[in-house]
Amino acid sequence: MSKKRKVAVLGATGTVGQRFIQLLDNHPWFEVTALTGSQRTIGGKFKDGCRWVIPGDMPAWAGEMIVQETSTNLDADIVFSALHSGIAKEVEPELAKAGFNVFSNASSYRMTEDVPLLIPEVNADHAHLVTHQRAVRGWDGCIVTNCNCTSTGFTVVLKPLLDAFGIKNIIMTSMQAISGAGYPGLAALDYVDNIVPLISGEEPKMNREPQKMLGKLVDNKIEHVDFNVSAHCNRVPVTDGHTVCASIQFEKSATPEEVKEVLRNYRGHDVVRNLPISPETVIEVREEADRPQPRRDRDAGDGMTTVVGRIREDEVFDIKMVIMSHNTFKGAAGGSMQNAELLVEMGLA
Amino acid sequence: MSKKRKVAVLGATGTVGQRFIQLLDNHPWFEVTALTGSQRTIGGKFKDGCRWVIPGDMPAWAGEMIVQETSTNLDADIVFSALHSGIAKEVEPELAKAGFNVFSNASSYRMTEDVPLLIPEVNADHAHLVTHQRAVRGWDGCIVTNCNCTSTGFTVVLKPLLDAFGIKNIIMTSMQAISGAGYPGLAALDYVDNIVPLISGEEPKMNREPQKMLGKLVDNKIEHVDFNVSAHCNRVPVTDGHTVCASIQFEKSATPEEVKEVLRNYRGHDVVRNLPISPETVIEVREEADRPQPRRDRDAGDGMTTVVGRIREDEVFDIKMVIMSHNTFKGAAGGSMQNAELLVEMGLA
Amino acid sequence: MSKKRKVAVLGATGTVGQRFIQLLDNHPWFEVTALTGSQRTIGGKFKDGCRWVIPGDMPAWAGEMIVQETSTNLDADIVFSALHSGIAKEVEPELAKAGFNVFSNASSYRMTEDVPLLIPEVNADHAHLVTHQRAVRGWDGCIVTNCNCTSTGFTVVLKPLLDAFGIKNIIMTSMQAISGAGYPGLAALDYVDNIVPLISGEEPKMNREPQKMLGKLVDNKIEHVDFNVSAHCNRVPVTDGHTVCASIQFEKSATPEEVKEVLRNYRGHDVVRNLPISPETVIEVREEADRPQPRRDRDAGDGMTTVVGRIREDEVFDIKMVIMSHNTFKGAAGGSMQNAELLVEMGLA
Amino acid sequence: MSKKRKVAVLGATGTVGQRFIQLLDNHPWFEVTALTGSQRTIGGKFKDGCRWVIPGDMPAWAGEMIVQETSTNLDADIVFSALHSGIAKEVEPELAKAGFNVFSNASSYRMTEDVPLLIPEVNADHAHLVTHQRAVRGWDGCIVTNCNCTSTGFTVVLKPLLDAFGIKNIIMTSMQAISGAGYPGLAALDYVDNIVPLISGEEPKMNREPQKMLGKLVDNKIEHVDFNVSAHCNRVPVTDGHTVCASIQFEKSATPEEVKEVLRNYRGHDVVRNLPISPETVIEVREEADRPQPRRDRDAGDGMTTVVGRIREDEVFDIKMVIMSHNTFKGAAGGSMQNAELLVEMGLA
Repeated sequence: MSKKRKVAVLGATGTVGQRFIQLLDNHPWFEVTALTGSQRTIGGKFKDGCRWVIPGDMPAWAGEMIVQETSTNLDADIVFSALHSGIAKEVEPELAKAGFNVFSNASSYRMTEDVPLLIPEVNADHAHLVTHQRAVRGWDGCIVTNCNCTSTGFTVVLKPLLDAFGIKNIIMTSMQAISGAGYPGLAALDYVDNIVPLISGEEPKMNREPQKMLGKLVDNKIEHVDFNVSAHCNRVPVTDGHTVCASIQFEKSATPEEVKEVLRNYRGHDVVRNLPISPETVIEVREEADRPQPRRDRDAGDGMTTVVGRIREDEVFDIKMVIMSHNTFKGAAGGSMQNAELLVEMGLA
Repeated sequence: MSKKRKVAVLGATGTVGQRFIQLLDNHPWFEVTALTGSQRTIGGKFKDGCRWVIPGDMPAWAGEMIVQETSTNLDADIVFSALHSGIAKEVEPELAKAGFNVFSNASSYRMTEDVPLLIPEVNADHAHLVTHQRAVRGWDGCIVTNCNCTSTGFTVVLKPLLDAFGIKNIIMTSMQAISGAGYPGLAALDYVDNIVPLISGEEPKMNREPQKMLGKLVDNKIEHVDFNVSAHCNRVPVTDGHTVCASIQFEKSATPEEVKEVLRNYRGHDVVRNLPISPETVIEVREEADRPQPRRDRDAGDGMTTVVGRIREDEVFDIKMVIMSHNTFKGAAGGSMQNAELLVEMGLA
Repeated sequence: MSKKRKVAVLGATGTVGQRFIQLLDNHPWFEVTALTGSQRTIGGKFKDGCRWVIPGDMPAWAGEMIVQETSTNLDADIVFSALHSGIAKEVEPELAKAGFNVFSNASSYRMTEDVPLLIPEVNADHAHLVTHQRAVRGWDGCIVTNCNCTSTGFTVVLKPLLDAFGIKNIIMTSMQAISGAGYPGLAALDYVDNIVPLISGEEPKMNREPQKMLGKLVDNKIEHVDFNVSAHCNRVPVTDGHTVCASIQFEKSATPEEVKEVLRNYRGHDVVRNLPISPETVIEVREEADRPQPRRDRDAGDGMTTVVGRIREDEVFDIKMVIMSHNTFKGAAGGSMQNAELLVEMGLA
Repeated sequence: MSKKRKVAVLGATGTVGQRFIQLLDNHPWFEVTALTGSQRTIGGKFKDGCRWVIPGDMPAWAGEMIVQETSTNLDADIVFSALHSGIAKEVEPELAKAGFNVFSNASSYRMTEDVPLLIPEVNADHAHLVTHQRAVRGWDGCIVTNCNCTSTGFTVVLKPLLDAFGIKNIIMTSMQAISGAGYPGLAALDYVDNIVPLISGEEPKMNREPQKMLGKLVDNKIEHVDFNVSAHCNRVPVTDGHTVCASIQFEKSATPEEVKEVLRNYRGHDVVRNLPISPETVIEVREEADRPQPRRDRDAGDGMTTVVGRIREDEVFDIKMVIMSHNTFKGAAGGSMQNAELLVEMGLA
């Protein structure tokens, strides 16, 4: 069965939208047939309405496309949503009802019971929830969400650890990149010779998103796993790449070497391995004492690999480590892209 | 009794040495009578041997002084040691034996049983250990140390919390300024668009220095307190000011409001309050959701106040918070200076 | 005659307004009697309406003041205007007409013929233009402006050079601090691992403001001096302090040593020297090969001294050099403050 | 004739050496047969002696190679020299004498009369000088140099402008990336919230390297072109990418549009276009008001394209503009690589 799909990018002029376009340039399965934007940009060429701020040039084909309104009139099978969560909340269900398969980067429906919150390597099987979602809601399309950019790498690492050792408690501190706040986003004056120890609304997400993603799908319901995460979220002067320092308490004892072994051997679900955007290595374990570092490691696997290092004994819990993940690839547009590829591959979209 | 003392700065050309000189400019009690430096600089004027890199100009009097060799021939009562720990290890006991009261910023003798590791507001009473030190070793002088720049602010905050609630466990992550590594110190290429999740040898200090400082002096011995600290130490692109995110498990229950109350009311030992360098406020508790921040808060109390914020419930332990302390004032030269003032005030130096 | 004056700060909640308040804390002549702000903040306490972002704490007295509307009902002799230029254009003449002496940091009236554009050390005598301004316009008050933050230090340096050697041409490049754009101002994502080679509308100011300030006041008119300035203005990841690299072609020949001599000896107008905010040294000439630098030199003279270095022969013109000036002290609020002090001292306000 | 060559990288463990290895990974013509390093690393595996600090992983084949001494015993046709200039000065002639074709990134022989200083797009014909060099010196090999990283992009842009309009004078200011100083290189404390207005020895190079490269090869001699360049060189907190602001005085008049036209149409020498590393676009002219920017434009043409913007009238000279070039690709290892490819293509190496 053909995997060719027509896709639209919603909110294409923002930074997440720009990443979607970059990832869709020469995509083997997906052809971009529509870009949508705000009132100001509708009806004009994308290149006139979009201030392209991510490194690399705007693809020429995108520049010439006419920006459309976000509506159910789009000519597309799949839509990638880079909408703000307020707008996403209204628009995404309408689109799903109208038959579009919506892959959303917005937080609006992440915790909704019948909406899969997916990281393919972690919980590809949760994708089946869309069948239930369609049945219950009478939709032809569906909504599938990806998780917060900070819980992404963190949850990828927790999956094999949970399976091997069980997890009781986690205390973690993030040092997050400024691209996570979009563009223009944060004030430059806050990020020269400074860090800001607050990311509004972020910390509670670390204590509910992993629990859903790591849960089991039983009878069309996801049973969340039961452990507590205490998060300290900070913003640091780094462009891309979120770094997390995590102390983990397991159910069973585990040595650093055992943990490294488990992480190194982790491959994720079979179906995920051959998706176009899937990286060769799901988790890269580094042995150098001072890695991972955002500037040097964020591009591992073209931004889709989670890089882990400094795996060592914890004086209070069992194990501590440093986890690095690219927040605008794996943690945003790349994650949504992989979700869409997954559902296409599974015949669900 | 007069508090006037002649003081020497050892290793005066480095960044900690420069801070000592800055703090000694117009000091009400201390007069600088000697500066020492490396072989290359000995015999020349300080201004010719020292590349002054801290903000503010080199005091004119310092520039004209002739750099001397570090030896027991110095004309001084008190010496401030900004020596590297290898050299400090050899030289400081010789100086103490020769009658100098050595206030050291080096790590060499911090954990030595009969050497006080002091933060005046926390454990001024440990200063009495020098009497025992002199007796046992047959020294006329003494060695007094200040703690690591990261354990400083952290321990200041733990003191009233320990007294009020008891402490069982702490998991903390630091985001430390690059000035902590001296000058030239760290590679610029590591600190643009990057963080480095390693500070060599730093993490174990967080699990032993606070325990000594918070301990009780009984029969000329310090009984260390018993709790565990797991530390994740990171270096971030900030010039000055160490930020710590800490999750704390208490013996007794404590609400965020109770913790704030205890911290706000903390005054430290009486004798400390009137030392020239002591700040008006020992601990400043901020209510804004995004403070403390290094660039905006490090200069509180001229770099001698510890600033705390985001005091809130912890999902795993009891309370979490953010602690900020100036690493080259309170955490280095300023700390040694306050220690020296304390011993002079107490009649011990 | 008493120099005590009641002063209001217009647009007090922005970053320039905050600097005004900081400089007015304990001012020997000026007492703050009113603060004005935007619609959102009027009627509330200043501390509730103002997000204080500059280092150092908000003075307690300011926090308790009630924010007023900007109008002619203010109880003040002098008003400092930190208004946006659009609003300043409308409001400042009304205030001047109503009898307020307006010291404006806005660009709206800088180039207006009968409005003095003042840097006291450069052209204190231009202050007399307010007498003409009042006569012609029938105002009791007046408008006095300070110049753009980048032309400030640059013009201070040009004054003695013009007097000594005459100036034909200048080609200059600025590397400007992000605080120059206010708060929130610039996007953080533009200033990590990046510079932006554009500051909208800035370059032409370098080719007209100095010419006015360096001109002669003859018969109530300022005769602009005649030389050309080509400016390249860039924004760099520095919080405070504008750096300018300038190549200068003189009328007469000049050696680097002669230029240094002239700059070192420059004292500015006599009347300026004893103003409360005037620095001891107007121009500091540094001999180190790598100075001035923004972080290390911007606080010279509490941000009111212009620091110059690398004075050397130019391969194309005559002399080249690096000029550094604090953009939010001397180049903004501090400059306005000094202008107000000057007019009070001269009996003109 | 086959273009396959065996190549060695001298000084392979430094940052320029690392870039050489990265560029040689899967090179269509060149096979790496030797890596040399300092005394400390000789005899060990490259991965044990090299602290890999550039983004991207060390190629596996390089990691397993045994580091050799820099000597005439190397098994190679071509050697890329990333040696420090002091060592390069001694070693490179010995290697050339022994038959190696040396492509050097060191400054030692750049201005030597019979040594080509090459940027292929600018002066590919100068490559013929090696025939003369071999004849005169009795060498089988040769030395070919690439220019300073700041004069690179600058000279690429000057070439078509010189041909079209003639050049009389240039005043330029550079804002250079910290990677230009290698690793560990510069002190981190100098590059947070700061710029340094000095790069030792850099400015004079801007006034002699372009003149040689833009000169004519006549009777085995390069006749330097005659114009003056005044350079202000600054170091800014950017990892990669040198930005130059240049004001240019031409012989003939030229409008901004004519200049853009000339730059856009520039293709360089025919022979250069098909070299493996040559970019599709030699000079990219951007129309946005705020480009080029280092982070967003340095990777144009995989770091081999020169990006120009803000082409506009100059108030003193004729035209001013901003030029951006990747200092460690086009300006260092990439430049040497292209030089080697050029000589192979021309049958000269």
